[in-house]
Amino acid sequence: MKISVVKNILEANQRIAEENRRLFSESRVLVLNLMSSPGAGKTSLLERTIQALKGEFRVGVVEGDIQSTYDAERIGRTGAPVVQINTGGACHLDSNMIQEALKNLDVKNLDLLFIENVGNLVCPAEFNLGENFKAMILSVAEGDDKPLKYPLMFHESSVLLINKIDLLPFCDCDPSLIEERALKINPHLTIFRVSCRTGDGLDPWTDWLRIKIQQQASGEIADPKTR
Amino acid sequence: MKISVVKNILEANQRIAEENRRLFSESRVLVLNLMSSPGAGKTSLLERTIQALKGEFRVGVVEGDIQSTYDAERIGRTGAPVVQINTGGACHLDSNMIQEALKNLDVKNLDLLFIENVGNLVCPAEFNLGENFKAMILSVAEGDDKPLKYPLMFHESSVLLINKIDLLPFCDCDPSLIEERALKINPHLTIFRVSCRTGDGLDPWTDWLRIKIQQQASGEIADPKTR
Repeated sequence: MKISVVKNILEANQRIAEENRRLFSESRVLVLNLMSSPGAGKTSLLERTIQALKGEFRVGVVEGDIQSTYDAERIGRTGAPVVQINTGGACHLDSNMIQEALKNLDVKNLDLLFIENVGNLVCPAEFNLGENFKAMILSVAEGDDKPLKYPLMFHESSVLLINKIDLLPFCDCDPSLIEERALKINPHLTIFRVSCRTGDGLDPWTDWLRIKIQQQASGEIADPKTR
Repeated sequence: MKISVVKNILEANQRIAEENRRLFSESRVLVLNLMSSPGAGKTSLLERTIQALKGEFRVGVVEGDIQSTYDAERIGRTGAPVVQINTGGACHLDSNMIQEALKNLDVKNLDLLFIENVGNLVCPAEFNLGENFKAMILSVAEGDDKPLKYPLMFHESSVLLINKIDLLPFCDCDPSLIEERALKINPHLTIFRVSCRTGDGLDPWTDWLRIKIQQQASGEIADPKTR
C-alpha cells in the first residue's frame, strides 16, 4: 500500500516533468537542477556564475526553500530574474512546483535557467523536474565519505562541483578520494573543483555551461542523459 | 488524501516511539537522537564523546545510514556496542526501525544511547524515535543562515552543537548570528560551540551529558520536553 502511494507520486511527478522538459526544449533554454546538502554553496555558486555570464547570456533562477526568501533576495541583487518557491515543509522540489513557478518567469527570454533545490543530499535526487542536467555540489568540509553514504545523488547527477577547496588545508578531506568514489558510482560525472568564496576553478565550469547553452539553443540536447 | 496518508504514518510512528520511550525509561538509559546535515560531524562527535566518557558510563550507539556500514565501523573501533540500521533509501529514521534495532542491543546494560540519524537537516526532525532529547549539529562551514531556512530542526532540538569552530577564521560565518537566530526559533536551546577535530569546547557538552545521565538514572526525566 505504502509502496503504491509512493509509486503514484513518482509517476505523476514524471508526467509533469516531461511537460516542463518540452517547454524548456521549445524555449531553447538550458535548465540545471542544482542540489546539495544545506550550506554546500548553491547560492554562492549561482551568484558567481550569473556574474561570470552577465552580458553574454540571459540567466534566470527558481529558488526552492522550505521557507524564507533569503536566497531569492541574494539572487535578486545580481539582477537576474528570480522566482521563489516555498515548499512549506517539503524536503525537495517536485515538477508540479516548477510548473507553477514557471508561470511567473518568461522562460522564452532566457538562455539558462537554474533551479536551486532544497538543501538536502537525499530526497531531491528522486524527483525529476524536467531539467537537462542535475548538478550537485559537495563541500570539502562535508568529508570524502559522502559518495559512499549518499550514492543516489551522485548516481543521478551529471555534474559534481567539489566546492570550498580553499578549506582543504584545514579539513581531513581528500578530494581525489571524493572523485574516485563518485566516479565508481557514476563514471559519466563531469567534475569541477571550485571555491565560490575565492572564485578559484570556476572558469572550466562556466566554459562547460557555455557549450551546453549553445547545444540546447541549437536543439542538440535531446535527452536528459546526453552529456 | 495525501495528507491523511502522511498523518497515519506520523501517528503510527508516535505510537511506537512511546513504546521505545517506555523501554528507555524502564532501562534508565538516557537516549539522544543526533541529527544534522551530511558531514556536519555527528560521527566525529560520537567518537570524541565516547572517548571522554569511557570507564565512567556505558555508551551504546544506533547508527542510521541510507546504506554502508562506514560510520558503524568507526564507532566500533571505539569499543562501544553499535547496531547499524540501513534505511535502504529512506531519508530519516523512524521509531519502528529503532524498535527493530533495539533487539540487537542490551539497553538495560547502558547508561547512554546515541541514535545517529541519517544526514539530513529536514526530514528527521518530524519523526520522534522515543528519545529523551533531540540534539542537532550545525557546522560553521554551512553558514549562519541555516536557522532561517531549516527552522523545524532548530525548533525540535533541545541541544545545538555548533561544530568546526576551528574553521571560523576561514568561513564567512558568525556563530553569534547562528545562536541569535536559533534562540529566536527555540529559546530553550542549550548551545555548545565545539570542534570535534581539535577537541575544543567539548567539556561543557560532556558535563551536560553527565547531568542528564544521572537524572535519567534516578527517574527525573519524565517528559521529552523537560530540559
